[in-house]
Amino acid sequence: MKIAFIGAGRLATNLSKALVEAGNDVIQVYSRTMESAQAVADIAGGSPTNDISKITREADVYIFAVSDSVLPELIPQVCKGREQKVFIHTAGSMPMDVFKGMALHYGVLYPLQTFSKDRPADFHQIPCFVEVSDDFSAKAIITLATAICDRVSPMSSADRKYVHLAAVFACNFVNHCYDMAADILDRHGLPFDILLPLIDETARKVHDMSPSEAQTGPARRYDENVIREQGQLLRDNPFEKDLYDRLSISIHKRAMKQQR
Amino acid sequence: MKIAFIGAGRLATNLSKALVEAGNDVIQVYSRTMESAQAVADIAGGSPTNDISKITREADVYIFAVSDSVLPELIPQVCKGREQKVFIHTAGSMPMDVFKGMALHYGVLYPLQTFSKDRPADFHQIPCFVEVSDDFSAKAIITLATAICDRVSPMSSADRKYVHLAAVFACNFVNHCYDMAADILDRHGLPFDILLPLIDETARKVHDMSPSEAQTGPARRYDENVIREQGQLLRDNPFEKDLYDRLSISIHKRAMKQQR
Repeated sequence: MKIAFIGAGRLATNLSKALVEAGNDVIQVYSRTMESAQAVADIAGGSPTNDISKITREADVYIFAVSDSVLPELIPQVCKGREQKVFIHTAGSMPMDVFKGMALHYGVLYPLQTFSKDRPADFHQIPCFVEVSDDFSAKAIITLATAICDRVSPMSSADRKYVHLAAVFACNFVNHCYDMAADILDRHGLPFDILLPLIDETARKVHDMSPSEAQTGPARRYDENVIREQGQLLRDNPFEKDLYDRLSISIHKRAMKQQR
Repeated sequence: MKIAFIGAGRLATNLSKALVEAGNDVIQVYSRTMESAQAVADIAGGSPTNDISKITREADVYIFAVSDSVLPELIPQVCKGREQKVFIHTAGSMPMDVFKGMALHYGVLYPLQTFSKDRPADFHQIPCFVEVSDDFSAKAIITLATAICDRVSPMSSADRKYVHLAAVFACNFVNHCYDMAADILDRHGLPFDILLPLIDETARKVHDMSPSEAQTGPARRYDENVIREQGQLLRDNPFEKDLYDRLSISIHKRAMKQQR
C-alpha cells in the first residue's frame, strides 16, 4: 500500500520502517520541521514536507503518528478532500471517533511499546491493538498490522485508554523510578549501572508471577525503622521523600489487602 | 569454609546454594520456624534448628540473612562465646558497626539483587558489595564473595544505605508500578501479559541511555489533556490518582530542569 505519514517522531520512525520492510511504500512524510520529515524519509523513503497543505492525494492510507494533543487539529486538514482514503491514528488515549465526520474509512493501530529513534523495534513481538470504522478500513488496517506484527487483536477505544493508562504506570512511571534511583546514586558518586541486574530481574520476575506476588522490600513488610531511616536520607529532596512515603504506604496497603 | 546461616528467607535460600556450589559447607541453618530452616537445609545441607541457643560453635563463618529489623536482636545471641569466628550480615540499610562490641571479626556482604525462593539467581552477574572490620574478616569475606560472584567491590556502610535506597526505587517501587498497571487492566478484564514487551523494553533501554534520556510519555511533554483525562479514569481510586498526579508532576519537573 502507498502510505503517507503525518508525524516524524519515535513511533513514525519505527513504524514507517517496519511497514516498508513488509513491502509497503511510504510516499510522503509530514512533520512541522523539515529536518524531522527528512530524517524519516531518509529511512522509509518518500518525500518530506513541512507544509500541511501539501499532503499528497496519492496515498491509500494516511497514518497519524503524532502526540494526542495535536491530533484533533491535524485530522481535518489531512482528511479534507481525501474522503475515499483510509485514515489511521496511533494514539492510546484518543478515541477512534476523533475521525467522525472527517472521513469515511478510518481506524486505530496502537502498538503497545516505548519507541526510541536509535533503537530498532521488533514489531513482531509487540502487541498491536486495532479498531476499525467499517469493512473497507478493516481490510487495510488489518492487512498492514498483520504484515508487521504477530500479535494483532481488536480493541475498543474504551479499553484502549485504560491500556494506555496502564502503560504510563508500567513504562513512564517505572522509568521515572529508575531516574530517581540514578539521581540518588549520582549524588553519592555511585554509578547507575550497578542497578542493571536488579532492574532486569525485577522485569523478568513478572513474566513468571504476578507483580503482587513479586513485591518485596521494606515497604511490603512495613519495616518502619528502614522506612523512617530511608526517608531521612531524602530529607534534602522533599519531593522525592514525599513520593517515597506515598509509594511505601501504597505498597503496604496493597500487601495488607491481599492478606485479608 | 564451614558456614552457619541465620535466616532462611529468599536471600538465605539463594546465597547458601551458591556458596555450597562454590565448595563450602553449610553446617547449620537457623530460622524461627523449623519448616523454613528445613527447607534451606534440604537445598544447602546442614542441620536445621529453630532454637537460637543451639547455634553451632563449629562454623568458621556465621552469615545473617534476616530482615534489618530483627538483626540487632539476633547478633548478640549468635556472637556470644564465638569471639574468634567471622560474622557477616547482608542487610543494605544496616551499618557494619551493628557488630561492634559483639565480635572481633565481622563484615558485610551485600548482593544487590531481588531474590525469589523458586527462581535460581546467577550470583556471578550480581554486584556484591563487601565491607570488612579487619584483615582476618577480609580474608574470609572476600574469599567467599569472589568464589560466587564476578563483581565484588568494597563499599562503606554510608554508601551502602544509599545503594539500598536506590534499589527500593529501582525494584520495589518499579514493581509497585507494575502492580498498579496490572490492577488497572484487571479492573477492565484485560490481561497483564500484554504489558510484558513494554516492561522489557523499558528495562533494556536504560542499559544504553540514562533514565532521564529514556523518559517518554504524556507527563514528560506535560500533555495536559491526556494527564487530566487519565486522572479522570482513576477517579474511583483516589490513592492511585494521587500517585498518578504526583509522579506526573515529578516527571515534568525533572524534564524542565534538564531543559534549563
